[in-house]
Amino acid sequence: MKCTVCRGPAVIDLRRHNANFCADHFLRFCRDQVVRAIDEHSMIEPGERVLVAVSGGKDSLALWDLLLGLGYDTEGMTIGLGIGDYSAASTEAAVAFAERRDLTLHRVDLRRDHDYDIPTASAVTRRAPCSSCGLSKRHLIDKAALDGGYDVVATGHNLDDEAAVLLGNVLHWHTEYLSRQRPVLAERAGPRHDARSDGRSGRGSGSRVFPRKVKPLVRLAERETAAYCVLRGIDYIVEECPMAEGNRHLRYKEALNVVEAASPGAKHAFYFGFLARAAARFAPEVDGAEGELRPCARCGSPTTGEVCAFCRLVDQAAGQDPVPVELVRPGRGGRRARTKAGS
Amino acid sequence: MKCTVCRGPAVIDLRRHNANFCADHFLRFCRDQVVRAIDEHSMIEPGERVLVAVSGGKDSLALWDLLLGLGYDTEGMTIGLGIGDYSAASTEAAVAFAERRDLTLHRVDLRRDHDYDIPTASAVTRRAPCSSCGLSKRHLIDKAALDGGYDVVATGHNLDDEAAVLLGNVLHWHTEYLSRQRPVLAERAGPRHDARSDGRSGRGSGSRVFPRKVKPLVRLAERETAAYCVLRGIDYIVEECPMAEGNRHLRYKEALNVVEAASPGAKHAFYFGFLARAAARFAPEVDGAEGELRPCARCGSPTTGEVCAFCRLVDQAAGQDPVPVELVRPGRGGRRARTKAGS
Repeated sequence: MKCTVCRGPAVIDLRRHNANFCADHFLRFCRDQVVRAIDEHSMIEPGERVLVAVSGGKDSLALWDLLLGLGYDTEGMTIGLGIGDYSAASTEAAVAFAERRDLTLHRVDLRRDHDYDIPTASAVTRRAPCSSCGLSKRHLIDKAALDGGYDVVATGHNLDDEAAVLLGNVLHWHTEYLSRQRPVLAERAGPRHDARSDGRSGRGSGSRVFPRKVKPLVRLAERETAAYCVLRGIDYIVEECPMAEGNRHLRYKEALNVVEAASPGAKHAFYFGFLARAAARFAPEVDGAEGELRPCARCGSPTTGEVCAFCRLVDQAAGQDPVPVELVRPGRGGRRARTKAGS
Repeated sequence: MKCTVCRGPAVIDLRRHNANFCADHFLRFCRDQVVRAIDEHSMIEPGERVLVAVSGGKDSLALWDLLLGLGYDTEGMTIGLGIGDYSAASTEAAVAFAERRDLTLHRVDLRRDHDYDIPTASAVTRRAPCSSCGLSKRHLIDKAALDGGYDVVATGHNLDDEAAVLLGNVLHWHTEYLSRQRPVLAERAGPRHDARSDGRSGRGSGSRVFPRKVKPLVRLAERETAAYCVLRGIDYIVEECPMAEGNRHLRYKEALNVVEAASPGAKHAFYFGFLARAAARFAPEVDGAEGELRPCARCGSPTTGEVCAFCRLVDQAAGQDPVPVELVRPGRGGRRARTKAGS
């Protein structure tokens, strides 16, 4: 097997690109795909401050490494989810990556900072763990980005992730999620209580209530981000989250793998075909159809209700006796879980 | 396992309905689903003449049996496709069904009547066999319905078929096919050469060029139509078409089965959710976007070109030395095959 570019020994074959690459040209391929994603979808402007959401897995570490290599001004943020050894090892991988490169990594720990963890939240709310996990991460990362003045949040969602989420949204025809499933979510302005550094609380007008969020890995498959990490010597946590086992997202990946195995490139065509020919058809019929936003009475974050979903989750889960991972059966409550767009 | 209705011994469990049925209540269930499909989508009016497209498989024979049981005025039509033993056995099953019930079954044979067969057409055109097969069936059934003055054509597409076709169209975002994937295709009027019985050719105006086509089995899974035939003592051809082996349609079924196995009802939600919340979004932006129709110079059928696709196929394939099934590798030319709506 020879590298399609230099004819040297290849280390990876990419069937959907009908190409093989040596290590150097594969790394260049990954970088090119990220550059292309950023350019085509106007994700990040030069000079902008980027907050990278870092889990410690292959995708987020590859993302951070790639953005650094491209010269972007990045800092990382990682959230301790309290999912037993898995979370401990994840945080460790993220911290090790940052320390070795002398990077700034902001750390939040659900148990330390908000007195709950994901297994406990899942048990208390009787919903799928992925539900409270996604909600917690979105809220805390959005808040950190706004409070820290970052221009944009970058997440490590890859092509497999996005195609699987799209399949889930299509199988249920969640039209409201379909309208938001894009590689870039624009920032949104609106009223927001400013309750941060100085302790006072005021009502800003026209300020950002959601930061711009971008997915620069959307042109790379998960097999490719894994290979990238291996070739770059990046230690990442290999295990999948034990609480996600058997969840719908993994099933949708499995279904798409049936198709991809016989038709390499099917996932790419599915996702990018959606963006090109279908996404606009699901745009909300009227602006503001998502509901009027107002500041959460508790934390000031934008919400359509009185108290935001995160504060309601904290209300339910904080201060409860911690529930060990083992007691929260994977997939429990899965029937009530829904696929989400633009996490 | 007890029947959900009468508590007698059940013969089948329907996970997606969370129900078990004895033979009688299962047959009633099938009939009710067909009644509901016909009613909800205004498929057939009382008194209309129905032409049933009969392959000899479980779906089309169950369909004919169900429509007879509901008192519809039906005749059948079957097409000898020339796919070796498979076609011979299919026709035999269709003929046996009709003879035993003293029903009218119209027969067309591609080789006898048009001097080609599907394996030969596939080899000559170098396209997937399913492509020339679908084209031939659509053309001949439409023509027979118009010439015979039938009000409507009924086909045996079941829920698994429709969901798999929908998945294929969604994976490729074939927006034009998505706009037509409905359980009812309305009849269309337009100019048409009338070149039938009296040998003269005239140009009709405002006459039907496409008959209404309906899929009354769209609420039944293929496992259910098979069980229906078994319980009704209907002999059908069990084999799948040998030329379809490995084709995309079967792969899409496999992918959906991954999802359905874990979430019974997923296919139903996918297909009917599409009809309810998405189909209208794919309607052509302007009427007539499908292209101006005019009569085929050869046969008078509606076409957007000079000569219709069927006549072009016959031009290519007729009179060629027959190619045996075995020489046409299944899936050959599959890369150029496309999923079709409203076949």
